[in-house]
Amino acid sequence: MTTWVPADEQAGFGVANLPYGVFSPPGQPPRVGVRIGEYVLDLAATLDAELFARGSLNPFLAAGRARWTETRSRLRELLTDERHRPAVEPALYPVDRVTLHLPIEVADFVDFYASEEHASNLGRMFRPDSEPLLPNWKHLPVGYHGRAGTVVPSGTPIARPCGQRKPPDADVPTFGPSVRLDIEAEVGFVVGTPSTLGEPVATKDFAEHVFGVCLVNDWSARDIQAWEYVPLGPFLGKSFATSISPWVVPLDALAEARVPTPRQQPAPLDYLTEPEPWGLDLRLAVELNGEVIARPPYAGMYWSPAQMLAHMTVNGASVRTGDLYASGTVSGQAADQRGSLIELTWNGREPVRLSSGEERTFLADGDTVSISATAPGEGGSRLSFGQVTGRITPANCDPAASG
Amino acid sequence: MTTWVPADEQAGFGVANLPYGVFSPPGQPPRVGVRIGEYVLDLAATLDAELFARGSLNPFLAAGRARWTETRSRLRELLTDERHRPAVEPALYPVDRVTLHLPIEVADFVDFYASEEHASNLGRMFRPDSEPLLPNWKHLPVGYHGRAGTVVPSGTPIARPCGQRKPPDADVPTFGPSVRLDIEAEVGFVVGTPSTLGEPVATKDFAEHVFGVCLVNDWSARDIQAWEYVPLGPFLGKSFATSISPWVVPLDALAEARVPTPRQQPAPLDYLTEPEPWGLDLRLAVELNGEVIARPPYAGMYWSPAQMLAHMTVNGASVRTGDLYASGTVSGQAADQRGSLIELTWNGREPVRLSSGEERTFLADGDTVSISATAPGEGGSRLSFGQVTGRITPANCDPAASG
Repeated sequence: MTTWVPADEQAGFGVANLPYGVFSPPGQPPRVGVRIGEYVLDLAATLDAELFARGSLNPFLAAGRARWTETRSRLRELLTDERHRPAVEPALYPVDRVTLHLPIEVADFVDFYASEEHASNLGRMFRPDSEPLLPNWKHLPVGYHGRAGTVVPSGTPIARPCGQRKPPDADVPTFGPSVRLDIEAEVGFVVGTPSTLGEPVATKDFAEHVFGVCLVNDWSARDIQAWEYVPLGPFLGKSFATSISPWVVPLDALAEARVPTPRQQPAPLDYLTEPEPWGLDLRLAVELNGEVIARPPYAGMYWSPAQMLAHMTVNGASVRTGDLYASGTVSGQAADQRGSLIELTWNGREPVRLSSGEERTFLADGDTVSISATAPGEGGSRLSFGQVTGRITPANCDPAASG
Repeated sequence: MTTWVPADEQAGFGVANLPYGVFSPPGQPPRVGVRIGEYVLDLAATLDAELFARGSLNPFLAAGRARWTETRSRLRELLTDERHRPAVEPALYPVDRVTLHLPIEVADFVDFYASEEHASNLGRMFRPDSEPLLPNWKHLPVGYHGRAGTVVPSGTPIARPCGQRKPPDADVPTFGPSVRLDIEAEVGFVVGTPSTLGEPVATKDFAEHVFGVCLVNDWSARDIQAWEYVPLGPFLGKSFATSISPWVVPLDALAEARVPTPRQQPAPLDYLTEPEPWGLDLRLAVELNGEVIARPPYAGMYWSPAQMLAHMTVNGASVRTGDLYASGTVSGQAADQRGSLIELTWNGREPVRLSSGEERTFLADGDTVSISATAPGEGGSRLSFGQVTGRITPANCDPAASG
C-alpha cells in the first residue's frame, strides 16, 4: 500500500507502520497523532476529538482491541485513498515542528531480565566461580517493579544521579555522583485493556491486552545498584530515570516481525507455554555520541512478551491501562550485540573506543545515547521504531538534601 | 477540645484525630469525608464540592500543606462550636451505613525494610551462619518498588495466589497455590505535594510533602518469594495484593506521637540526618480471626519516614501526589511484637496457638487478619488508625491461564 503523503516506505514510517504518539503543534495543547513519513497526523482533528484530544494515549488504549484495529484500518484508508487528501492534509504537521511528549500515562512499570546472554554475562562477571545463570532463570521470566513516576520522554536530559556507593575495598560507603553510569537497551510493551484482579492472563490473550511496543533506555547507576540491591533488588540505581521512545508501534503492524522464540529447555510450566510464539525480530542499534556501538537483536530473547504477561499475572495481579513492561537489556551472542556498557566493556576492563579516539567505560557528562530499532513490515517493508535518546548532564548532589 | 458530635474521645476518633477517607452514602457517588466518632462528615457538602466531591483524596493531597492545615482548623471549628451544628449535622453519616473506598489513587508504591528486628529475624532464619544484617542495612533504608495497581482497600477478599515454588529438596519448581501465605504489618506514608525530578527532598521537608499515615498489610507468599527473588527482589510473592486502611491520619494529628528514633550507629550520611526526628509512637495490634497475636511497636523502627523519603529521592527521583511508601514489617524485640507469621512462628517451626485450640503456621483459607493501631493525641487523648482487614479466599489457579 502506498500513501499520498510524501513518505518513503523504506524510511520506516509508511502506512505499514503508523505508530501512535502524543504531540503538540506550536502553541497548542497536546493531542494524539500517528507518524506518517516526516509528518504527524492529528487524530483529534481527523477522527475523534473526544478520544484523541488528550495528553496521553490512555483513553484510546482503554478502548480495546476492536477499536485499535478499526482505527488502524480507517487511518490506512484515509492515508492511501487520494480522495481523502483534501480533508486530511490540513491535519498533517511536519514532525520537526511539533513537540513530542510521553505517549502514555504510565500506571505500573515492570522490568524483566529476559535475555539469556545478558543474564549470563552479568553472572560471569559477578559470580565467576558459579554457573552464570541463577537456578530460577530458565523456569520463569525474572522481573521487578520499577518507578513509574520517573519514566520520561525521549530527549529529557538525564542528570547523573547521586547516592551511596561502596567500592569493594572500602569499609564504609561514601556519597557522591555515580561513576558507573550505564544504559540498558530494552523493548517495552504497553498494556491497553486491563485485566481483573484474581484472574491470570493466558499467553494466548497477549494481543487482547497489549496494544503496542516502544523502545526503552533503563538508565542504570551500577555503583549505586551494587551496594543497595541485596536483598530486595535494584532501587535508586534505576529509579532516577527511564526514557521511552515517543512512538508506540501497534502489534497490528508487527505480524511480519513475529518469529519463534529460542528453544526453551527445560520446558516451561504450562502457564508459560504459548500456542503461537511472540518472539519479535526487532533489530536495535545503540549510538553513543552519534556512533553505533552495539546492534542488539531482540529475536534471540529467551522469554517472549506473552510469557512475561502471563507470568506477571499468574498470581492474580491485575494489569491496568498504561502499564508498561520492558524486556530487560537486549543482548545477543556477539560482543557487539550487547545492550549495556557494563557488558560491552566487560565491567569496565575493555573500554569502547570511539572514532574520535575517545574511550568510554561508563557514560561521561555530555554524552548522548540514542537507541533505535527496525523490524520487518508488510510487503517487504521495514518499520522504524524511531529512537529514544538522552544526554547526560552533570550531577547536582544538592546540598539542600542534607538535613 | 470536645465536639458536639456524639463522639467518645477515647474511642480514638475525636477532634484530635480527624482522619480522611473516601466514602459513598447509600446509592450515591464517592466523596471525601473525615471520621468523627461513629460518623463520617461529608466534606463535599460541608466545605468544597470542587475539591472533595471526588473518588480519591488526590486533589486535596495536591493542594499542599497550607490547605491541609487550614482545612483541619476549619473542621475543628465546625465540629466543636455548637453554633455550626445545624448546618453541619445533616452532612454526618453513620460510618456503618456507608461504603469505604481506597482513599488514594496510588501513584508509585515503595516498600521499605526499616525494622532492625524484622531484618535481623529474617537474617537469622535464612543465613544462620552469617551476621543477621546485610552490610548495607545500617547505612541506608533498604527498599524496593511494589505494585501500585494491586493496592486494595481494607475488606477486599484476598485470593490465595498461585505460582511457582521450589522446596529446597526438590529439583524443579512446581505450580500451585502458595502454602506459605503470610502478612506483614506495616505503616504507610501518603505523599501529597510532589517534588521535582532531579531535586532531592531533604529530611527537614518531610512534612511539606507527606500528608499523612495509614496502615498497610503487605500480604506475602513466602514460597513464591523465596524461589523468585534472586537477583531482582520480591515480585509475584507480593504483587497479588497489598491492603491499606480506609483512614489516612494527617501528620497534623501526630504532634504528640513524635518520638526520637533509636540511636543510629554508624551515624548515617549527611543526607539521612534529621534536624528533628520523625519516629512515631504508633502501637499496632495484629488480630487473626479476632484474636490478637502480636503487638508490634512502631516507635522502635530504625529508619524514620523522613529518612525514607530523603533516601528515595536522593538520586533525583521525584515523588508524586498519591505516592505511598510503607515501612516494611514492624517488629519489636519481644516474641509477641513481631509483625509477620514467618517471625511469629519462626519460619513455621513454632505454630501460633489460638484460644480455639487451632494452630497456624501460615494463613489458612477463611482466615481473617486485621491490623489496627493507636497513637497518643493532644491532651492525653488516644488516636485510632482504624484497621486494615482482609479474609483469605481459596486459590483459583485458573486453567484459562494455560496457553
